[in-house]
Amino acid sequence: MISLRPVLNVLGFLYVGLATAMLVPAIVDVASRNADWRAFVFSALFTGLVGMLLSIAVGGSLKEGLNIRQTFLLTTLAWATLPALGALPFMWLGIGYADAVFEAVSGVTTTGSTVLSGLDGLPPGLLVWRSLLQWIGGIGIIVMAIVLLPFLRIGGMQLFQTEASDRSEKVVSRSIELIRLLGLAYVLLTALCIIAYLATGFELFDAFNHALTTISTGGFSTHDMSFGYYTNPVSGWVAIFFMVVGALPFVLIVQALRGQPLLLWRDPQVRALVGFLAVVSLMMTVYLGATMQFSFGEALLRATFNVVSIVTGTGYALGDYTEWGGPVVGIVLLLSFVGGCTGSTTGGIKMFRFLVFFGTVRAHFRRMVRPNRVMSEEYGRTRLTSELSFSVLAFLVVYMGAVGAVTLSLSIFGLDLTTALSAAATSVGNVGPGLGPVIGPSGNFAPLPDNAKWLLCAAMLFGRLELFTVLVLFDPDFWSR
Amino acid sequence: MISLRPVLNVLGFLYVGLATAMLVPAIVDVASRNADWRAFVFSALFTGLVGMLLSIAVGGSLKEGLNIRQTFLLTTLAWATLPALGALPFMWLGIGYADAVFEAVSGVTTTGSTVLSGLDGLPPGLLVWRSLLQWIGGIGIIVMAIVLLPFLRIGGMQLFQTEASDRSEKVVSRSIELIRLLGLAYVLLTALCIIAYLATGFELFDAFNHALTTISTGGFSTHDMSFGYYTNPVSGWVAIFFMVVGALPFVLIVQALRGQPLLLWRDPQVRALVGFLAVVSLMMTVYLGATMQFSFGEALLRATFNVVSIVTGTGYALGDYTEWGGPVVGIVLLLSFVGGCTGSTTGGIKMFRFLVFFGTVRAHFRRMVRPNRVMSEEYGRTRLTSELSFSVLAFLVVYMGAVGAVTLSLSIFGLDLTTALSAAATSVGNVGPGLGPVIGPSGNFAPLPDNAKWLLCAAMLFGRLELFTVLVLFDPDFWSR
Repeated sequence: MISLRPVLNVLGFLYVGLATAMLVPAIVDVASRNADWRAFVFSALFTGLVGMLLSIAVGGSLKEGLNIRQTFLLTTLAWATLPALGALPFMWLGIGYADAVFEAVSGVTTTGSTVLSGLDGLPPGLLVWRSLLQWIGGIGIIVMAIVLLPFLRIGGMQLFQTEASDRSEKVVSRSIELIRLLGLAYVLLTALCIIAYLATGFELFDAFNHALTTISTGGFSTHDMSFGYYTNPVSGWVAIFFMVVGALPFVLIVQALRGQPLLLWRDPQVRALVGFLAVVSLMMTVYLGATMQFSFGEALLRATFNVVSIVTGTGYALGDYTEWGGPVVGIVLLLSFVGGCTGSTTGGIKMFRFLVFFGTVRAHFRRMVRPNRVMSEEYGRTRLTSELSFSVLAFLVVYMGAVGAVTLSLSIFGLDLTTALSAAATSVGNVGPGLGPVIGPSGNFAPLPDNAKWLLCAAMLFGRLELFTVLVLFDPDFWSR
Repeated sequence: MISLRPVLNVLGFLYVGLATAMLVPAIVDVASRNADWRAFVFSALFTGLVGMLLSIAVGGSLKEGLNIRQTFLLTTLAWATLPALGALPFMWLGIGYADAVFEAVSGVTTTGSTVLSGLDGLPPGLLVWRSLLQWIGGIGIIVMAIVLLPFLRIGGMQLFQTEASDRSEKVVSRSIELIRLLGLAYVLLTALCIIAYLATGFELFDAFNHALTTISTGGFSTHDMSFGYYTNPVSGWVAIFFMVVGALPFVLIVQALRGQPLLLWRDPQVRALVGFLAVVSLMMTVYLGATMQFSFGEALLRATFNVVSIVTGTGYALGDYTEWGGPVVGIVLLLSFVGGCTGSTTGGIKMFRFLVFFGTVRAHFRRMVRPNRVMSEEYGRTRLTSELSFSVLAFLVVYMGAVGAVTLSLSIFGLDLTTALSAAATSVGNVGPGLGPVIGPSGNFAPLPDNAKWLLCAAMLFGRLELFTVLVLFDPDFWSR
């Protein structure tokens, strides 16, 4: 059996951290003389108490370290239980159980699908808590993707093993320094984003909330119209810039902030992402210019904004792109699979997997045509092992299989095919809005039946945990000696 | 450069064979005093002349043999050009260019999507030619999958290398004996199927046509209502039996007919297919029994018939299953990806790829959890190499990527998402009907715009050629020395 003690110990520590975060919306509500502050304070007390009791009950110290199987368990348990606690304030404020958990999971996984409407009139604490869940989830996934997943060799991420994710039996005790630097960079970028939004005319409250959900590529807004609420086009471009930043590998951002910006541009993932975004945005601009009544600047902004928002999995909307005609709907659906770079806040398949895939398939062709020659593939300067290519391909297959299975289940729950498929893709990819009149960028997820909401919660977590972190727990071998 | 001489030589030989086949509908039309026989005779003369001129022009003998790259080229060229010639009689009879080619491609690839309606009133020769195209395509894919593809190492099919598909530089000259046996088994099963249909009350013309399109898992019918036309439930069970037979590995069928039937049952693919069909059919029966006004026998027949028809890629319909409610639509869509066994007449992903996939992913999990142990996977008694697992996974990814790309293109051509996605899945999987009011089992493909028809022709061929046979031609390396 696996010893759960160190796992529960770390969990308790994380719960106390979450409880502390709940005090932020409490303070906001107190400051704005809103009675809702009680919901956050009581939730914080409960969450903090659970966390402390857990840590005390299991005893031991955080420095004990975790082995591989404990790390797998901790990762899944943390992402599954934190949103359950994060949903407490929503429930306190009268939101139903399924809706509250859906909103919290969508927040922590930085998906951005919402069951709430009338956002403009909601109390400030509630809005801040939504934004904060995404912001916490954003740094959470960055740390997980950089420190834990390469060590667990999830979906080809062994490619990104650093000293901090070295494959020894002791993991947690290292990497403290790297985590500190990542956190600093994250806070710094968030501050810059707030300032930039303020400069384009946002009020402080909006600037704060949107900065939290932009850099985390989360996508919760404080307005039902999302970015359609703001008339200054520069605000849109600020959002585009910081969404892209949130989709870059944060290890390279740290190095850029320390004076090595060229490393960013030399990275194959960064080049692929920026190139891809530029090409698709331009094509979309041309299409919009040709078919709609937009000026060039407006077409360029709307095309780029929505393409960047979907590919990075943010999920802000600038206008309802589902009204741009049939082709856009198909393209948006495909874009929701793409994702940004690994080690960022984005979900989806991610750039490096496409690069590895195309590289290995090309080499595969060569071997098919000329079986007697030995060839090897590279990613950047790393030679690709067959184990690694296999991880990446298996990830792609499981990813699409998961979208298929969720689509099927949702259609069994009575959703039409467009809603079911786009809900599946947007949840596994941690994007945000779906397609169709119900869950499209102008709608929200509230009308879905509860079983669909629970399934989508599972799908969001499954995608956020890069599939295999969860799947491996279902293999009986995992639990055997 | 690749020498085209032997490739064109074999092509010419195949054209002459196709021309000979065109005489069958000519005879049928003459016998039924229908003036359409001219269309078939003229088409046969033209096709035969092209074939003979080609062979004479390039000279040489069939015994020359082909190297790997020539085999790739021949395979794609044969499947791309034979339907173009097979479309000639359709055009002569007044069917438009795009429609004629679509019908011929759908025939030769044993897909079974049709642009024709009012089938019950069409001249007999035309109906026979449709059936014959599928029957020829059926034996064509069997020979290709058993003799050529393992040798070309397409999508993991190196697993099925036999002596006849040995990886030497000379291929065609061998394997004549195996091809003869496969052909004999195919003819024998077709004859048995005709007799069985006659015994359930079919007229000879219907029995002949449906036998040709059942054993080839093609699915063209002589009635707009497809199998809904026949009231005897035993006819449905006969069709189910022979559709399953058509989905079995024909090498094992040959061995069964030679007195080793147990080999069939010991094959992992056969077990997986039969088990899968049984489980899904039963589940569907329960669903139908619970939600519709069917007796148990009727529910069992309708569920099993349509599940087998879609999984084997036949595409007959018994009733309009799209009216069975939302869940069925989602399930039918997923079933259209599955396919039967390799070395059969079915399309789709096919059983052995699922088996290899699940086996290797499970082993992958074990390595993730316990990195220091060496483990190997097996398929039947064959040890799986990493090259082979890779081939299979790459196939799965490209398959789903192709469905995505075709869906996107069709939605750009103006099709709604359900029509676009189901058309993409049904064409790449060589199944037949799609979903939605236009291309569903009660509709047909005629209303689609011409560009959509051309794209679907390409998709059917791409699927039939197991993707990589075509893709490899687009790699510049293929053409270099």
